[in-house]
Amino acid sequence: RVNGDRLWDSLMDMAKIGPGIAGGNNRQTLTDSDAEGRSLFRTWCEAAGLTVGVDKMGTMFATRPGTDPDALPVYVGSHLDTQPTGGKYDGVLGVLGALEVVRTMNDLGIRTKHPIVVTNWTNEEGARFAPAMLASGVFAGVHTLDYAYGRKDPEGKTFGDELKRIGWLGDEEVGARKMHAYFEYHIEQGPILEAEEKQIGVVTHCQGLWWLEFTLTGREAHTGSTPMNMRVNAGLAMARIFEMVQEVAMSEQPGAVGGVGQVFFSPNSRNVLPGKVIFTVDIRSPDKEKLDRMRAKIEAEAPKITDALGVGCSIEAIGHFEPVTFDPKLVKSVRDAAERLGYSHMNLISGAGHDACWAAKVAPTTMIMCPCVGGLSHNEAEEISKEWASAGADVLFHAVAETAEI
Amino acid sequence: RVNGDRLWDSLMDMAKIGPGIAGGNNRQTLTDSDAEGRSLFRTWCEAAGLTVGVDKMGTMFATRPGTDPDALPVYVGSHLDTQPTGGKYDGVLGVLGALEVVRTMNDLGIRTKHPIVVTNWTNEEGARFAPAMLASGVFAGVHTLDYAYGRKDPEGKTFGDELKRIGWLGDEEVGARKMHAYFEYHIEQGPILEAEEKQIGVVTHCQGLWWLEFTLTGREAHTGSTPMNMRVNAGLAMARIFEMVQEVAMSEQPGAVGGVGQVFFSPNSRNVLPGKVIFTVDIRSPDKEKLDRMRAKIEAEAPKITDALGVGCSIEAIGHFEPVTFDPKLVKSVRDAAERLGYSHMNLISGAGHDACWAAKVAPTTMIMCPCVGGLSHNEAEEISKEWASAGADVLFHAVAETAEI
Ligand SMILES: NC(=O)NCCC(=O)O
Ligand SMILES: NC(=O)NCCC(=O)O
Repeated sequence: RVNGDRLWDSLMDMAKIGPGIAGGNNRQTLTDSDAEGRSLFRTWCEAAGLTVGVDKMGTMFATRPGTDPDALPVYVGSHLDTQPTGGKYDGVLGVLGALEVVRTMNDLGIRTKHPIVVTNWTNEEGARFAPAMLASGVFAGVHTLDYAYGRKDPEGKTFGDELKRIGWLGDEEVGARKMHAYFEYHIEQGPILEAEEKQIGVVTHCQGLWWLEFTLTGREAHTGSTPMNMRVNAGLAMARIFEMVQEVAMSEQPGAVGGVGQVFFSPNSRNVLPGKVIFTVDIRSPDKEKLDRMRAKIEAEAPKITDALGVGCSIEAIGHFEPVTFDPKLVKSVRDAAERLGYSHMNLISGAGHDACWAAKVAPTTMIMCPCVGGLSHNEAEEISKEWASAGADVLFHAVAETAEI
Repeated sequence: RVNGDRLWDSLMDMAKIGPGIAGGNNRQTLTDSDAEGRSLFRTWCEAAGLTVGVDKMGTMFATRPGTDPDALPVYVGSHLDTQPTGGKYDGVLGVLGALEVVRTMNDLGIRTKHPIVVTNWTNEEGARFAPAMLASGVFAGVHTLDYAYGRKDPEGKTFGDELKRIGWLGDEEVGARKMHAYFEYHIEQGPILEAEEKQIGVVTHCQGLWWLEFTLTGREAHTGSTPMNMRVNAGLAMARIFEMVQEVAMSEQPGAVGGVGQVFFSPNSRNVLPGKVIFTVDIRSPDKEKLDRMRAKIEAEAPKITDALGVGCSIEAIGHFEPVTFDPKLVKSVRDAAERLGYSHMNLISGAGHDACWAAKVAPTTMIMCPCVGGLSHNEAEEISKEWASAGADVLFHAVAETAEI
């Protein structure tokens, strides 16, 4: 078993960097806080005898050598970046859990045939630069490096410039590394494990996603002197699209979600009807047919809504991944580990996207999840217990040890 | 008649300060651009022989003496501040139109019994600091000076600090000046005069307004891993409130408007259901009963919508003025002037709020309006013709001359 106290202490130490305003974290990707978190992580890796490589997307790979020089490494990781009002565990648990696996192997003098590489992927959250899981996407060949470098934050700064600015532009070609397997340990970010009183989620699938960015064009006009029948009201069109997205998601229950997290009104002045409204619809389902049908319905209904109001409507798909089925052998190895350790467990479909979704394109991949309080995540109040954290890390330790061949 | 070319040239010179991004202006109150605009205006006033006083709200009063030392002044003005994406004429026409009246009197050697005071009120727009018409509101005793100084812009800077910072904190007590009359010349900001092919709007009334600031409290949660039935979706509640406001305004037709210009989502991240949504509903009517009934309906319906979704809802009235009836004698003087000058005219109810609405509380007050293209205002594309501008200024000249007693 791993050292649960040490894992917890590391989680708490990392949480001191980029503190939030309500007990969580704001350590968004490629900020100064992200750089600080990376440095601390590198220090820990080096102290554990790992060699840290960095690729051209800033992804960090900390290698513990194997005994067989020809064996491909087992990668284990997640991300250290957070949402603007994020929790202390989303992503971080997976990186520091992987580090704890290596630290435990060091303690126990365990050698593995395959090297083990503790991994910190850049910009998993996609909060500052859309889309999410950007570096793992480039690694898996889904995006080009140029596409990634050109992504802009809301202030117009590019990913490429910011990566250079914080000093974490590495020299490794992205995707050049070949993987024997990829493991990712993560909090569930949903309510199921807690409700079912299970310690371990054996993740068999991950939902697919579409991010549909809407740009509605109304006519900027005075809220007081513009009669109702002369308005080209992009805000009202947005409201109707929100309601329609809700209806579409409800019509595909169970096994589908849809909602909106981000809205920009322009010029965003109380007495000006907006000339432009931009928002992103987030729809997901583990069922590819459902997912694509939701997109089709939304894209068919939205223009009807906007046309009726004279509002212009353009829709761009700015984020997408297909539903993923994880590697059966690795899934079994996780389930067996939970059994062996005597932890209660159940199969789970990941509701959130993860770097594992892209890694699955290039290597046998799976995930392990632990519960989180109230299913809450992407919220500074995100919480887990030390016992939950270490149970999942124990399972990770066993599954990685088996796959890397003790 | 006034010198229409000179008026136009001054409008174009002022528009060079704080240029927008699409041909209009961004000269928001208490910004550096506002300070620059004020300095240019002061230079012009001094060149026209006026003496400039500034009060503790930064409002500028440029006095042309009268012949009777005991006669109260006739105030004539509007505002030089603009919306973030504002036009070149909204407000500016009224200040520079007043200056043109004085310049014309100088040209013609006209003396009046009552002094004439060209006035530039601070923060009419209310875009940076709510509410609108802030300085005239303090002048009329509607707000305290402390209330005004404490108003915050979206960055948290206060009105009081910013007024000092740009160097336009004056020493006159606000409201100490007594007025014989107040005139305000403004573009219509609505479509009626152009549609009716009238040159002059004789403004008899001004609509009343409520600004209702909503704060909705949802639960910040992951858009992917939070099932539909576990969401506390403040964005969806907002959408339903938008639709309800639209219905309430439509149920009071004709003679009422309702809409939303400003929205803040928090944390405003694509994969986070918002924990907080803030927006301001703007409702107006010239009929006090209608106006208050709309507010009552909205305040009754909104909690039903939010309760059904488990969302918290608080509503604060952050802006208000009652419908205003302008002074019949001054209204007649404007109508007579239009007749005398041979300009087509019609009675008009102002759809927007103006400093005249507060001035009307402390002095006989009226307004004059000229058409604007397509009724468009609070839009950089706001446009008027030189002929429209000078016709209104001619009427202002005649009405002011009559009231100030040549
Ligand atoms: N795990 C996680 O929150 N990833 C961000 C990408 C997503 O929105 O699913
Ligand atoms: N005239 C004008 O646009 N005033 C701003 C206050 C309002 O919203 O009516």
